[in-house]
Amino acid sequence: MIVGGGFGGLQVARGLRRAAVDITLVDKRNFHLFQPLLYQVATGGLGPAEIAAPLRSLFRQQPNLRVLCAEVVDIDPAHQTVSLHDGQPVRWDYLVIAAGASNNYFGNDSWAAHAPGLKTVEDAQEIRRRVLSALETAERIDDPSERAAWLTFVVVGGGPTGVEMAGALAELAHVTMRDEFRAFDPRTARILLLEGAPRVLTAYPEPLSENARQSLHRLGVEVLTGALVQHIAPDHIVYTHGQETFILPTRTVVWAAGVRAAPLAAVLAQRTNAPTDRLGRLIVEPDLSLPNYPHIFVIGDIAHFSHQNGTPLPGVAPVATQQGQYVAQRIRRLTAGDTTPPSPFRYTDKGNMAVIGRKSAVAQIGRLHFTGWFAWLMCCSCT
Amino acid sequence: MIVGGGFGGLQVARGLRRAAVDITLVDKRNFHLFQPLLYQVATGGLGPAEIAAPLRSLFRQQPNLRVLCAEVVDIDPAHQTVSLHDGQPVRWDYLVIAAGASNNYFGNDSWAAHAPGLKTVEDAQEIRRRVLSALETAERIDDPSERAAWLTFVVVGGGPTGVEMAGALAELAHVTMRDEFRAFDPRTARILLLEGAPRVLTAYPEPLSENARQSLHRLGVEVLTGALVQHIAPDHIVYTHGQETFILPTRTVVWAAGVRAAPLAAVLAQRTNAPTDRLGRLIVEPDLSLPNYPHIFVIGDIAHFSHQNGTPLPGVAPVATQQGQYVAQRIRRLTAGDTTPPSPFRYTDKGNMAVIGRKSAVAQIGRLHFTGWFAWLMCCSCT
Repeated sequence: MIVGGGFGGLQVARGLRRAAVDITLVDKRNFHLFQPLLYQVATGGLGPAEIAAPLRSLFRQQPNLRVLCAEVVDIDPAHQTVSLHDGQPVRWDYLVIAAGASNNYFGNDSWAAHAPGLKTVEDAQEIRRRVLSALETAERIDDPSERAAWLTFVVVGGGPTGVEMAGALAELAHVTMRDEFRAFDPRTARILLLEGAPRVLTAYPEPLSENARQSLHRLGVEVLTGALVQHIAPDHIVYTHGQETFILPTRTVVWAAGVRAAPLAAVLAQRTNAPTDRLGRLIVEPDLSLPNYPHIFVIGDIAHFSHQNGTPLPGVAPVATQQGQYVAQRIRRLTAGDTTPPSPFRYTDKGNMAVIGRKSAVAQIGRLHFTGWFAWLMCCSCT
Repeated sequence: MIVGGGFGGLQVARGLRRAAVDITLVDKRNFHLFQPLLYQVATGGLGPAEIAAPLRSLFRQQPNLRVLCAEVVDIDPAHQTVSLHDGQPVRWDYLVIAAGASNNYFGNDSWAAHAPGLKTVEDAQEIRRRVLSALETAERIDDPSERAAWLTFVVVGGGPTGVEMAGALAELAHVTMRDEFRAFDPRTARILLLEGAPRVLTAYPEPLSENARQSLHRLGVEVLTGALVQHIAPDHIVYTHGQETFILPTRTVVWAAGVRAAPLAAVLAQRTNAPTDRLGRLIVEPDLSLPNYPHIFVIGDIAHFSHQNGTPLPGVAPVATQQGQYVAQRIRRLTAGDTTPPSPFRYTDKGNMAVIGRKSAVAQIGRLHFTGWFAWLMCCSCT
């Protein structure tokens, strides 16, 4: 049983296509989502159909797999079952948890309403709606300072998502919509990127950060590093920069400052006594299994794996993909009766990184790309 | 000032492109919607982008027109202004009301939650979500009678929308999704069309009704004429057919049984003492103006025009289009100082009618069709 149809879960399912196993892939949505490009949906560069692939279509040719669109609400490791939000519990011999992450407001959950994150199609569509609606409002109102607030867009967090999002917002306002309005010039719109650290893309080498900052500057994004958000309200954001505190009137804030493990991690931790880190991620063994549960594997953003170099691997697609491949191989061997102790999982960094601009984005989708009405037609949420 | 960017409002705006006037086109959405094809969005045959055209793009080349995305909340005929949901009131010399219609549950408004209609993109997307989610649920649950309820789809109303919707649902379940599921055969899904009158498409000649019924039958739709809905609940629908009462377990009901004038009609009736009919439509003069207000015109689904043959013209796109052309001409003449009494509006029926199937649907879109991400990108709702 595989919980989650993201990059990790997909690889496990594919890696078992010729194995003598019956696979159930369960996800709250019946589609795989290319999450790294959600920012493109949020800024209208791509439609949801272009970054989603229905799980049923992906696995139509794999008869040993069935898709269940449902939410896993509980896990019983003793009886080896999972409970769904409705319907019968499902039995498993091997369980793979690949349920991903959700937005993390670090205790300030009231900010969520004023600063949506970028984890789901709904998130992206809500941001798109707010951005377009802000421009429409600026066309309608006369007060110059009010209009300026509607034309100020703030992205919080200078990781890959925040950097891409700020760049795409600038392209949208300063280029795409240049001639669309009569009451103001969209090129006067301000796009700010606030990052607490001294540079953007802190997980990458310093020259890359500098590169990204220059690209953003050329696009007209104001990049503020060392800027710490203190408060987010419907019509302004408060942040400190150096010794000073700033109150910036804005109607549109996007949250890209952090994630935490999906809620299922807490359920599983309780049932198995597995340890978790401060982001709620399950701390896994060198073979990606849970301590004392060699038949339960945890991969991707919901897992904390630090056996390689002491720090946890980042929550990016290549990590999940390689972990999925590793677990598929482990299960193939275990079901074939191979009891050799496994060599630990090792991540190979192939240098994927953030890109800025729509063209590179489209190139990223690669062979998962499904086009047209037929693909999106079958996408829905089941909970 | 034109209120509403549907078929009627668009024609007025276009017909005034060379006139010496300043036009404000106001709509709650910043896009024109090809409403007759909403049923295709509801069944996944088309994406919203394919039946929507941003008003700003449509009028980019028309410098005498500005688009305001806003809701009109009040009209003051004495001071010749309209009030928007926010921002300043807007002054007008000529006012065209083309605000359309909304779903009509004939006093049973509690049914709306269980049986969404088909007037907005949101309506269509909600129906699509329910249809797909019903199929996903059928895959997940084991109880045969419960599964049968999830696989029963009911369309209420045998007008053009209901006929198209039932046909498209049958195509979706019986053809498109034939191989998608493992626990059941989608061809066992039931699609019922309930119509109170003795035949479907009552507004059209009898041979056409018979044609439609046969087409639906071939697609696997069960057409019940003389069927009157008594109640709609989340998990069943009650209807009478002849002397008998039936309780049909179903999880998906679509309402296509009627519309009424948009709420703005009531506001305008109060402010001008204009008469309305039982569907709330404003009863207009032979020149489409309101009694005693020769500078206020009302066109399309929100208007009741019965000077031609005693019965009101139907709420279809060709009527709104021709009325828009007529009003544009009237305003051109009035602003040019032409005081000749106008000849009354006359509708010419060019024989447009319901078609069944995706191909004919696509053909209908014609030259309004905008493709790709760029068009949809700019569509949003402002209220």
